[in-house]
Amino acid sequence: MNIVDLKKSLDFREEGQEIYTLMAGLYPICRSITGNGYRETMEALRRYIPVEIHEIPSGTKVFDWTVPKEWNIRDAYVKNSKGEKIIDFQNSNLHVLNYSTPIKGVFPLKELKPHLFTLPDRPEWIPYRTSYYEENWGFCLSHNQLQRLEDGQYEVFIDSTLEKGSLTYGEIYLKGEKEEEILISCHACHPSLANDNLSGVSLTTLLAKHLGTISHRFSYRFLFIPGTIGAICWLSRNEPSVNRIKHGLVITGVGDSGEFTYKKSRRGDAEIDRVACQVLKHSGQAYNIIDFEPYGYDERQYCSPGFDLPVGRLSRTPHGRYPEYHTSGDNLDFVQPQCLEDSFRIVLGILEVLEENCVYLNLNPKCEPQLGRRGLYNSIGVDAMAMLWVMNLSDGLHTLLDIGERSGMSFEIISTAGHKLYEHGLVEKI
Amino acid sequence: MNIVDLKKSLDFREEGQEIYTLMAGLYPICRSITGNGYRETMEALRRYIPVEIHEIPSGTKVFDWTVPKEWNIRDAYVKNSKGEKIIDFQNSNLHVLNYSTPIKGVFPLKELKPHLFTLPDRPEWIPYRTSYYEENWGFCLSHNQLQRLEDGQYEVFIDSTLEKGSLTYGEIYLKGEKEEEILISCHACHPSLANDNLSGVSLTTLLAKHLGTISHRFSYRFLFIPGTIGAICWLSRNEPSVNRIKHGLVITGVGDSGEFTYKKSRRGDAEIDRVACQVLKHSGQAYNIIDFEPYGYDERQYCSPGFDLPVGRLSRTPHGRYPEYHTSGDNLDFVQPQCLEDSFRIVLGILEVLEENCVYLNLNPKCEPQLGRRGLYNSIGVDAMAMLWVMNLSDGLHTLLDIGERSGMSFEIISTAGHKLYEHGLVEKI
Amino acid sequence: MNIVDLKKSLDFREEGQEIYTLMAGLYPICRSITGNGYRETMEALRRYIPVEIHEIPSGTKVFDWTVPKEWNIRDAYVKNSKGEKIIDFQNSNLHVLNYSTPIKGVFPLKELKPHLFTLPDRPEWIPYRTSYYEENWGFCLSHNQLQRLEDGQYEVFIDSTLEKGSLTYGEIYLKGEKEEEILISCHACHPSLANDNLSGVSLTTLLAKHLGTISHRFSYRFLFIPGTIGAICWLSRNEPSVNRIKHGLVITGVGDSGEFTYKKSRRGDAEIDRVACQVLKHSGQAYNIIDFEPYGYDERQYCSPGFDLPVGRLSRTPHGRYPEYHTSGDNLDFVQPQCLEDSFRIVLGILEVLEENCVYLNLNPKCEPQLGRRGLYNSIGVDAMAMLWVMNLSDGLHTLLDIGERSGMSFEIISTAGHKLYEHGLVEKI
Repeated sequence: MNIVDLKKSLDFREEGQEIYTLMAGLYPICRSITGNGYRETMEALRRYIPVEIHEIPSGTKVFDWTVPKEWNIRDAYVKNSKGEKIIDFQNSNLHVLNYSTPIKGVFPLKELKPHLFTLPDRPEWIPYRTSYYEENWGFCLSHNQLQRLEDGQYEVFIDSTLEKGSLTYGEIYLKGEKEEEILISCHACHPSLANDNLSGVSLTTLLAKHLGTISHRFSYRFLFIPGTIGAICWLSRNEPSVNRIKHGLVITGVGDSGEFTYKKSRRGDAEIDRVACQVLKHSGQAYNIIDFEPYGYDERQYCSPGFDLPVGRLSRTPHGRYPEYHTSGDNLDFVQPQCLEDSFRIVLGILEVLEENCVYLNLNPKCEPQLGRRGLYNSIGVDAMAMLWVMNLSDGLHTLLDIGERSGMSFEIISTAGHKLYEHGLVEKI
Repeated sequence: MNIVDLKKSLDFREEGQEIYTLMAGLYPICRSITGNGYRETMEALRRYIPVEIHEIPSGTKVFDWTVPKEWNIRDAYVKNSKGEKIIDFQNSNLHVLNYSTPIKGVFPLKELKPHLFTLPDRPEWIPYRTSYYEENWGFCLSHNQLQRLEDGQYEVFIDSTLEKGSLTYGEIYLKGEKEEEILISCHACHPSLANDNLSGVSLTTLLAKHLGTISHRFSYRFLFIPGTIGAICWLSRNEPSVNRIKHGLVITGVGDSGEFTYKKSRRGDAEIDRVACQVLKHSGQAYNIIDFEPYGYDERQYCSPGFDLPVGRLSRTPHGRYPEYHTSGDNLDFVQPQCLEDSFRIVLGILEVLEENCVYLNLNPKCEPQLGRRGLYNSIGVDAMAMLWVMNLSDGLHTLLDIGERSGMSFEIISTAGHKLYEHGLVEKI
Repeated sequence: MNIVDLKKSLDFREEGQEIYTLMAGLYPICRSITGNGYRETMEALRRYIPVEIHEIPSGTKVFDWTVPKEWNIRDAYVKNSKGEKIIDFQNSNLHVLNYSTPIKGVFPLKELKPHLFTLPDRPEWIPYRTSYYEENWGFCLSHNQLQRLEDGQYEVFIDSTLEKGSLTYGEIYLKGEKEEEILISCHACHPSLANDNLSGVSLTTLLAKHLGTISHRFSYRFLFIPGTIGAICWLSRNEPSVNRIKHGLVITGVGDSGEFTYKKSRRGDAEIDRVACQVLKHSGQAYNIIDFEPYGYDERQYCSPGFDLPVGRLSRTPHGRYPEYHTSGDNLDFVQPQCLEDSFRIVLGILEVLEENCVYLNLNPKCEPQLGRRGLYNSIGVDAMAMLWVMNLSDGLHTLLDIGERSGMSFEIISTAGHKLYEHGLVEKI
């Protein structure tokens, strides 16, 4: 079975549901860029796919960076003077400033306040905040709650550790016919946030699961990494072989109901860029194509000038453009199985084009061959038109993708026409 | 006399009328891709121009195709049970399925019906149908008439032959100063249809007649060929010398009152493409430029990847975009002398640019020469501006066409300015 | 002090006022393409800057041209039959056809009329007319006045001389770190016309004055030349060294309140063209970019094909597009200190980009360096974004200008980010 057959055989509705179910299972875990929450997440993925788990010791130098100490947390709360837990990590792991150092003490409100983070503009949501590289402690809460806090003494407790340990990431490699690779990368370091990026983690997991069952031309490498530092670690450890990556995709924020957004690679005209545009154009979905900029997710690292890998990014609404972004509003209600389903279809569509794109050579290049006597041409329609296009441009210089772009027809129609001509001996593959 | 003088001396109104008159004379003949109707048409053209007539035997292999048997028809009709001729070839040659095999017999309506072709959407018109490569017989009639047919027996008679013979086409070659050729091609295989393509045949005939009376840089080759198979025959027989063709134009459907349509060659930026755009832009006529696609008329063959000749197509409303297309509605009322006149002017304008385009070299390239003391520059206006443009860009790298495109001025104005500078010794021709 | 510091330290409002004051001082002088008015103007500039004055003898051959005789004028008038001076050179030097030959005589109105020039469409303004290369005499007056003239005899007197002498122009050269030059050219040959081009002359003077006080990478050459013939003289005398000119700007008509107009060099994509577009785009000023055309001011000569220098032109409303152009309406009320100030800021901004544009090399090209621990990245904003852009594109192939264009950010922001990264050892200059 190849990817074309896979795409035909899948029940995408069921896949969307399955991705959502996986997300729901991962949602409660308190993840960070290091620690047991990350390991637990990777273990959960291993129920679907054989994720290989890597551990990079704290203190390891990775390019300009150093792998930080490992952070773990068991409990945290703030109690008021009546002894009531008014902020409780057990209710939401967003309540703790991610990477908080341990603390135990009693503070008057005035001294506590600099350690409390809220969103005045979205007073009902808890913000998601981190302090990876600057030691600090703190709590996140809704602005409404903050405003209700009365003067008085507050008991603060964060039962965390920040110690030498390691950074964890997951990786799967699926060997294909060729050594050339397609990289699929997603960050898995956020705690209870759904769209950012359990959606990407879960979609990628299901994708890897299915690709593991079929044959494919390209080899595939899936990375489940903590954002930024994880990509830097991986690039640092795999520098000699990154030139095998011929196409790459960062997958994030694919569960909301916004329009698709494809962000081009730094190169801007890499095959992955052209393929993503082509697939979205013919998908029937609303979408936007945006140029590369050096801010965003891990495409920042893959597209740094020393690597300049052909890695684009597929999202729906981009990070920071939806109010729920990095708040407790990005929960399981914010994402929908139907949206995950559509995203899965787009990703598989992109991979299908990458797999199937090829160059045919017209074996009758002088004038048109007589399609009629081969039963290929009764009257002109989309299929005949596609065959005429493939024959006209199969001069050895044009890929099927080129032909799709020039004809304005979908890759699927062009590719099908190519197959049909091939079966009739009118073109050969080169 | 050169083409510039010719264009100035012609009475285009008279030419439009003359083209129409020729069309009217050719209209009644029953043409097909082979047979005596085609020969009769070529003989009619010989009253204007010395068309050389070629005969290619049936069965000749031409690339992937085989020259078909020759078809001839003398008469055909359907009689009702009262013995009345209800469909009569003598009234319109469109009534017979073109390439019908001979038949004589009596059929009940039910058995006759699969052999009757109509246009339900245009119930008053007789469609034009062919069956060149699949033996069949049939009649075309208006849908209104079909609906009035009563049950009963019908006498069917088609007095045709489909036998070994030959395919006929006409060709004229006008030797110019150089061996490099301009190809003008039109299909002449349709029976009583006016716009498609007696308009192209007749315009090309008058064009060849006039070009035969003047001197020209390029050699010209005019082809009057049956569509598709004719182009394939010609390319097959002339393969070694097709690389002499520097520019080419397929001329079809130039008599209706629709906007001009220039379809670019496969190359998309051939000189003929740029020239056609330039001439149409400054023509004062409404027009559209469309990209190459591998469907249409004989540009399909000239632009097949094994040839990839710089051949574009000039039409007015494209085939299939007007309801009269391939029906009895495409008759002598559908075309107008005024439209033929405008089309003729455009075609001659295109050839004029191809003939006159050249590179001048500014002999005073350092600063402007003093036009004033040569009486060339009194105040700034279109003419002085054109001279400034020609001088500024005549660095040996820009043709007059380039200068016209960059300045936004018509080729005619630029070329006139070039001539004037040349006369004053300010530029030389290279 | 370099140009960045200069730009920061200048009080532009004061500069605008100063430019206006200089214009006002120069306004009454009767200039032409030769003569004492031109010399007097150059002497006036020497109170600001050490203009070197060149004299080219009449009759000198300069490419296709010949330096004309020198013209000087002391007085001119027309008296009516009552002996009243009805046209008086002392009131406005525009009253005399520039380059008028001497005349003294009495003429009936009918004979005088062919020597009188008016603007029927703008009946209140005196036109500015010249007759450099065809000997003639004449007077310019308002059309209203012409219509009031009664029949009768008129006494005509023009006390001018047209004799062998020389053509005068001014030049300043400011040596920079490199021999490569930036050329700033303005025509100074018009009599009492303010915008065209005392605005350009005065702005250029103040610019030269300030650039004379700072250090700069490029050498600068300022030309104060009579239009056309002056540029031709200068190019003719400096032909061997014009290839030192790497960027150039013709400055004319920069005092009116119209939108800025940058006219591209003949090359169209020269660095000066890109820089001017970039500066105007981020200036907050309304502007238009127009393509090169071989009509206009002295860019015509600099961009003639034998030189093809990268010289653009900065104006506000282009010549001929405002009714006051070449009339007495182009007076000191037509220009405004505020507009001169804005123009000066744009010109200095363009030079700043030319001076500061460079290529940095990212010393941590593999993944992003950790900006946070260097205190360079607290939260994402314009400054951090600019640093990310500079690092991402500093692969040795992109200038700061390239980065500004691709990021859509102003050169100033990009350049500041580059400096900051340089100070932190994250990039080096190449």
